[in-house]
Amino acid sequence: MKLDEIDKKILELLSEHGRMSYVDIGKELNLSRVAIRERVNQLWDNGVIEKFSVVINSERVGKNVSAFFEVDCEPASLVRVAETLANNPVVASCYQMTGPSTLHMHVLVEDFARLEQFINEELYSLNGITRVESHILLRRFKSRTGLKL
Amino acid sequence: MKLDEIDKKILELLSEHGRMSYVDIGKELNLSRVAIRERVNQLWDNGVIEKFSVVINSERVGKNVSAFFEVDCEPASLVRVAETLANNPVVASCYQMTGPSTLHMHVLVEDFARLEQFINEELYSLNGITRVESHILLRRFKSRTGLKL
Amino acid sequence: MKLDEIDKKILELLSEHGRMSYVDIGKELNLSRVAIRERVNQLWDNGVIEKFSVVINSERVGKNVSAFFEVDCEPASLVRVAETLANNPVVASCYQMTGPSTLHMHVLVEDFARLEQFINEELYSLNGITRVESHILLRRFKSRTGLKL
Amino acid sequence: MKLDEIDKKILELLSEHGRMSYVDIGKELNLSRVAIRERVNQLWDNGVIEKFSVVINSERVGKNVSAFFEVDCEPASLVRVAETLANNPVVASCYQMTGPSTLHMHVLVEDFARLEQFINEELYSLNGITRVESHILLRRFKSRTGLKL
Amino acid sequence: MKLDEIDKKILELLSEHGRMSYVDIGKELNLSRVAIRERVNQLWDNGVIEKFSVVINSERVGKNVSAFFEVDCEPASLVRVAETLANNPVVASCYQMTGPSTLHMHVLVEDFARLEQFINEELYSLNGITRVESHILLRRFKSRTGLKL
Amino acid sequence: MKLDEIDKKILELLSEHGRMSYVDIGKELNLSRVAIRERVNQLWDNGVIEKFSVVINSERVGKNVSAFFEVDCEPASLVRVAETLANNPVVASCYQMTGPSTLHMHVLVEDFARLEQFINEELYSLNGITRVESHILLRRFKSRTGLKL
Amino acid sequence: MKLDEIDKKILELLSEHGRMSYVDIGKELNLSRVAIRERVNQLWDNGVIEKFSVVINSERVGKNVSAFFEVDCEPASLVRVAETLANNPVVASCYQMTGPSTLHMHVLVEDFARLEQFINEELYSLNGITRVESHILLRRFKSRTGLKL
Amino acid sequence: MKLDEIDKKILELLSEHGRMSYVDIGKELNLSRVAIRERVNQLWDNGVIEKFSVVINSERVGKNVSAFFEVDCEPASLVRVAETLANNPVVASCYQMTGPSTLHMHVLVEDFARLEQFINEELYSLNGITRVESHILLRRFKSRTGLKL
Repeated sequence: MKLDEIDKKILELLSEHGRMSYVDIGKELNLSRVAIRERVNQLWDNGVIEKFSVVINSERVGKNVSAFFEVDCEPASLVRVAETLANNPVVASCYQMTGPSTLHMHVLVEDFARLEQFINEELYSLNGITRVESHILLRRFKSRTGLKL
Repeated sequence: MKLDEIDKKILELLSEHGRMSYVDIGKELNLSRVAIRERVNQLWDNGVIEKFSVVINSERVGKNVSAFFEVDCEPASLVRVAETLANNPVVASCYQMTGPSTLHMHVLVEDFARLEQFINEELYSLNGITRVESHILLRRFKSRTGLKL
Repeated sequence: MKLDEIDKKILELLSEHGRMSYVDIGKELNLSRVAIRERVNQLWDNGVIEKFSVVINSERVGKNVSAFFEVDCEPASLVRVAETLANNPVVASCYQMTGPSTLHMHVLVEDFARLEQFINEELYSLNGITRVESHILLRRFKSRTGLKL
Repeated sequence: MKLDEIDKKILELLSEHGRMSYVDIGKELNLSRVAIRERVNQLWDNGVIEKFSVVINSERVGKNVSAFFEVDCEPASLVRVAETLANNPVVASCYQMTGPSTLHMHVLVEDFARLEQFINEELYSLNGITRVESHILLRRFKSRTGLKL
Repeated sequence: MKLDEIDKKILELLSEHGRMSYVDIGKELNLSRVAIRERVNQLWDNGVIEKFSVVINSERVGKNVSAFFEVDCEPASLVRVAETLANNPVVASCYQMTGPSTLHMHVLVEDFARLEQFINEELYSLNGITRVESHILLRRFKSRTGLKL
Repeated sequence: MKLDEIDKKILELLSEHGRMSYVDIGKELNLSRVAIRERVNQLWDNGVIEKFSVVINSERVGKNVSAFFEVDCEPASLVRVAETLANNPVVASCYQMTGPSTLHMHVLVEDFARLEQFINEELYSLNGITRVESHILLRRFKSRTGLKL
Repeated sequence: MKLDEIDKKILELLSEHGRMSYVDIGKELNLSRVAIRERVNQLWDNGVIEKFSVVINSERVGKNVSAFFEVDCEPASLVRVAETLANNPVVASCYQMTGPSTLHMHVLVEDFARLEQFINEELYSLNGITRVESHILLRRFKSRTGLKL
Repeated sequence: MKLDEIDKKILELLSEHGRMSYVDIGKELNLSRVAIRERVNQLWDNGVIEKFSVVINSERVGKNVSAFFEVDCEPASLVRVAETLANNPVVASCYQMTGPSTLHMHVLVEDFARLEQFINEELYSLNGITRVESHILLRRFKSRTGLKL
């Protein structure tokens, strides 16, 4: 789907104000509420918009430790391991990348005690894992929401 | 802020249906519209909710290449480099982690030609960068939205 | 076999114009068609010329992704793994080098979906593979054809 | 350009027998010489065929050592270094890849004395190079010619 | 437990002079022996003070080689391996860190012969160990005692 | 100095009970107070005993984050950097090891905010530092006090 | 054994001229033949002199390729692998070092074909080997003989 | 020079017994003293024999620490650095290898204090050195003398 300038403006507004009414969006763009609704519906139907959501500050809900993992698997086990980890609620994302045959994983937990429990009891115990690297978030310089990585 | 079960339910519903009306949320939770509105306002005031947003499928808007970078800087230049990169619109996120003194960065671009241009013209040209690792997303096993990493 | 200047000139002309007639080569070098044919035959007989070929632009035939792999094997499995991979049509070349006990492999595929399929279904499933590194071609600065690497 | 089955057959025949006459190709495929010529011309015009060439056995012409290099550059110097190296006649190919910000380079030389000379006098002396890895070809399991990597 | 300035002074004095009498500490801080004793007791009861000890110069008691190890384990074996190593009297400390899934271990032995014996007979023989890095102390720039790392 | 069995027993008792009276030590070992005092004095004079100290639980005094660093320096700057870092009160120990030409450093800080401040303002700003690795303590399996590492 | 200046002079002369007669050594040092013989005998008896030998130029006897290997073993197999490799006549030396738990090995062979045979048939086939690094000698800047490394 | 079986036998005898008389060698091989002398002379003249020497046990002459170094240089400084290091008497050998652009160096010193002095005062102070790895010999499994590595 090819987006025109108005589509992009709508997506920008919704990225920052996800509950903005179609009337207000229309006012900003000199369009009717109906025109906006139609375009938003089309963005839904074409899969451009996956869902509306809310951005939650993880520290404010007690998720104080944000950790990144590189998980080395026996190559034949990679997909199975990835699917198991994806089901763990502390895992925020799990990707396969080019580069080394590892899984790239983001984890959000309450504190270091929970992190250590996740590592020793939920991660290291999985069959097919051969080595793990973990790093802790020190500082966010940019953290864009809205676009799926 | 300590969240109770109802706060958590509200956040879960809003994570999946960011534009759900307070009336409908209230029906799900056996609460009035006003009670929901008050709780949402309090989540805002306490910084738990950062914003409402829309999750956009990046491939559908032509961002076909999702790349992860490890950017090695001269340590004394790390913060300056990070702030410069954070201003580049193709950079989706930029973090400082424990582990090696690199910047961890996510980039979304249209295609490989744009990626090569970003690397050679916008990244490698920055003062204080000594080495870069780049990897391309092959497969998403999980990609949670809503919680800030 | 020791090549003289005329042999080298012939090979250079054929490298750039593989179907050039012996008459035309002879004109360039002030030699008869028969003299050229004899020398070319001798280059064949001595194994200098392995074959005449055509250089195909891989992107133009839909091979858009050129990837390099370092494949770590259990040492005892390296030759078997190499021979299996050499039979896979997406594998363009496969070498054993000094340095780490890995296989160095070039792969040409249509797109990232096919690359991911190759990695997860055809490569990681082989017995004896312990770790893989993959990298994607960003830019060709030189790509000489004619000499066997 | 979308290739049909006959185009592919022609390219396969020319890959193995680059000087095969159009008459002979026509016989194999039940087509006239003119039909083959027209298709070959179209493959030229569309950039599918880059040139006809000859595959030369490098050892038989005295290039006994085939080496692969990973060349680390200061990122700002990478393109300049790559273009300088691409002009060196012992460099067979030179690529920029994802992964580490190195140049990937293939070199063909007569012997180890020439390799050492290339490394110490022609490579290490370039401005902007910070580290180099070199590995020597031990064994070819597959080395396809015809398709541009 | 929140320490005030007097608590901190007491801990500093005891760090450098672990057997200093409460009378003498009291004189330094203008407090009675009883006041000091009460505060020390409270520091004990709150777990701030773990024990009083003596700092022994390891070279003077014949422990001439101080070695640091990074012990790679199969992830599922890490805790078991760590607990076994912790029981070995030459192991001074053994930690699990973020970063690679290795154990970080300090070892003090008489000489290189004992080190080699420890490595080959007591360390490499453990089930679940896949790789080890060992490094020898060359020079101490700072080595604080008193605070538990 | 060659220690006999009684010296070793005394050191063991003092390691665990640094303020134990010489009378009580004497009772345990069937020796007089004077004999113990003489031996302890000799252990002091020979440099075996460096000092008496107190073992403080770092978490209980608010040092919640224990981090290990590998600090890469330009080799010519290593000693100067080490001496500067040794003067920083958050640095608990700083060693030069065999292996890579890095400094090995233990740091104790209150929390991640202080750690990030130490890294970005006190460590990365030092001249001659080229790269840093940092890892956070997850779990102590053994942490012996009394012997100088 | 403590060597005096005369012992050192004798060892220096024998290092460069291993067959020099005791008479000639005596003349150089203003000592009798008998005095030299007695000292040499004592150097033998004390194990200072291990043997007299001849330094052979390896290239002149057809050993054209000098290779260094780092051989990763399962730790429990390291000693067995080392003893097996030490029996292979192409292995010139084999050491266990601090650092990674690898074997450091020097190999001298006729040519690359023999090197590849050694690697694939004699090295990779050993049980307990997990990874190998091999590097080829490019240039000798110094190669002292006489002292055992 | 092509060696026959008798040449090889002579070299083997001289490798183990470098001062064996030609008469005794002749007896072992059923040849005259003159025949042996002539062959040895020819081995000298052809550069097969570089010198006769004595193998000295380094520990017995107080060289207790045998260390291997990988010295990273700025590529343009590698040859200059190598030549400087080759002049240092504690350096036993210094090689340039394929693989990383480092110098491989063997060092023999009296003890760790001397090693630290060499590292900090004689090695790290050289211009053009960027990083160093050092490892200590733990155990010799084989250490052949006689053939130049």
